[in-house]
Amino acid sequence: MQALCLKPGQLSYCPDYPDPIPGPDEALVRVRLAGICTTDLEMVKGYIPDFHGVLGHEFVGEVVSAPDGCRHGQRVVASINVGCSTCAVCQVKGFEHCPHRQTLGIHRHDGVFADYVAIPLRNLFAVPADVPDEAAVFTEPLAAALRIREQVRLRPSAAMAVIGPGRLGLLVGQVLAVDGTAVTMLGRHPASLELPAQWGLQTALAADVPDNSFDLVVEVTGNETGFAQAIRLVRPLGTIILKSTFAGLSRLNLSKVVVSEITVIGSRCGPFAPALRLLAARTIATNALIAASFPLAEGVAAFEKAAQPGVRKVLLRP
Amino acid sequence: MQALCLKPGQLSYCPDYPDPIPGPDEALVRVRLAGICTTDLEMVKGYIPDFHGVLGHEFVGEVVSAPDGCRHGQRVVASINVGCSTCAVCQVKGFEHCPHRQTLGIHRHDGVFADYVAIPLRNLFAVPADVPDEAAVFTEPLAAALRIREQVRLRPSAAMAVIGPGRLGLLVGQVLAVDGTAVTMLGRHPASLELPAQWGLQTALAADVPDNSFDLVVEVTGNETGFAQAIRLVRPLGTIILKSTFAGLSRLNLSKVVVSEITVIGSRCGPFAPALRLLAARTIATNALIAASFPLAEGVAAFEKAAQPGVRKVLLRP
Repeated sequence: MQALCLKPGQLSYCPDYPDPIPGPDEALVRVRLAGICTTDLEMVKGYIPDFHGVLGHEFVGEVVSAPDGCRHGQRVVASINVGCSTCAVCQVKGFEHCPHRQTLGIHRHDGVFADYVAIPLRNLFAVPADVPDEAAVFTEPLAAALRIREQVRLRPSAAMAVIGPGRLGLLVGQVLAVDGTAVTMLGRHPASLELPAQWGLQTALAADVPDNSFDLVVEVTGNETGFAQAIRLVRPLGTIILKSTFAGLSRLNLSKVVVSEITVIGSRCGPFAPALRLLAARTIATNALIAASFPLAEGVAAFEKAAQPGVRKVLLRP
Repeated sequence: MQALCLKPGQLSYCPDYPDPIPGPDEALVRVRLAGICTTDLEMVKGYIPDFHGVLGHEFVGEVVSAPDGCRHGQRVVASINVGCSTCAVCQVKGFEHCPHRQTLGIHRHDGVFADYVAIPLRNLFAVPADVPDEAAVFTEPLAAALRIREQVRLRPSAAMAVIGPGRLGLLVGQVLAVDGTAVTMLGRHPASLELPAQWGLQTALAADVPDNSFDLVVEVTGNETGFAQAIRLVRPLGTIILKSTFAGLSRLNLSKVVVSEITVIGSRCGPFAPALRLLAARTIATNALIAASFPLAEGVAAFEKAAQPGVRKVLLRP
């Protein structure tokens, strides 16, 4: 099959990658549409140096074969953490933090930038018929945005900001605003704020906002300056949610975290079922986030496009 | 009066510093005994460059004069944040995070390394007769340790560690262990672990402990390596409490905070009333923390002593 493969430091298109062979509890899924996210871009930069294989974890596909037969032809999305399902973490807290886990296209498991991927049945979620592929492909990042609502008690009267109006940040902003919360999208360039302003979210250039303006700040910039800006903008006793993962170190002055007793919470993967319900209800805008779509054979060019400043979701069609 | 004064970058003994003049709601307090903490040492290094005046915030004293008269001669300790008492933060959340606050010996208010200090009556707490000065002088740092119990739900069955078995860390370790929690004190040198081991706390060299060993890690090292070590040692979904404030930046890899969804909570000043009750009940050992005592006139030498590695509480007697 064709696939986009990563060897350390190098992304390449492989026209003859071996087809995946499903295990006893796995389905073989044909990838219909996949999305490039910031983690994929960081992996090409070396964020997880020991990963070799097919990149990608955001997708919608179609079951080609499955042990239980009945899923054949079903349109599916899949959670990306493949836990061992036997350890205490898997049984008590779920697969996301299994110490033995594989992660699609990130850690010890081939990803979805390919014609086919093999995935455990327990990771699959059926996509409702009225959710088109172009929306369903956002299930994984939308679930990641929803993760914040599972981690923190969010008060609709709180002042919230999202730093980084990009492909994930704009999902986070919408997810925070669903209950009437006033959410401000913060960016570095006016052009990046046009879309959220059209949606009715508040917007501002981050540098123009006074210190201590928000009860909660979500950092989704994907770069090391974002956290320092979040520390500046959050109020005493406030909360920062960290969503960015990137290669390299951050130079930070953490005094305000201590003196103003800030809570910082790392946030990663979230729940797929409510994400699919929100997509089915058309509560969350996704079409406007799509910047371009490339055939998989042009995947290297698609990555170049996705890495350009201000470009949001770039899709890949196997 | 005599006082230990800080001008940017320079600590000096001033034999003729002006006596404080109490405001209408303030008591004049004679300082009986004061303690040097890591924040004082960091301030000499320039942690808060705009502070000029008398250093110090840990102390026990005696009321010389007060507007209400009845406190005359009372032995007192005092919380260090002097809020405006009129803003919304003061009225809803307390003085500790008042944006207009002064802080004893730290920010816009002379401190306690002096013969006298003027302090609002509302900041004073009477010291029970059976708590000697040498214990009462630990009220402020003990309250800071207790702050953790106010911020986080602590499960007695959780595995907890304190990195930095110093003057504050050893109070934190005892405060975490009061309810039967297994607490491990982590240090860099075997000598620093002897005292907590005598107290029955678990001890280990931090570098010898495997990754992901603790549900909660309190970082009290006072230096920038502590946070990186805390990130290494905390379990996925675990909590880090940051107690260290210091001049300068930290270089950190925050990926684990995001991927393992760690919660990081800054923690500063705590409640005085329960701290005094613990001291009265002799639940918390303090005598063994006292490394030396100096007359105030030898304050500069006392600071040099307190800055030596492994030295715990150095006291000053005006």
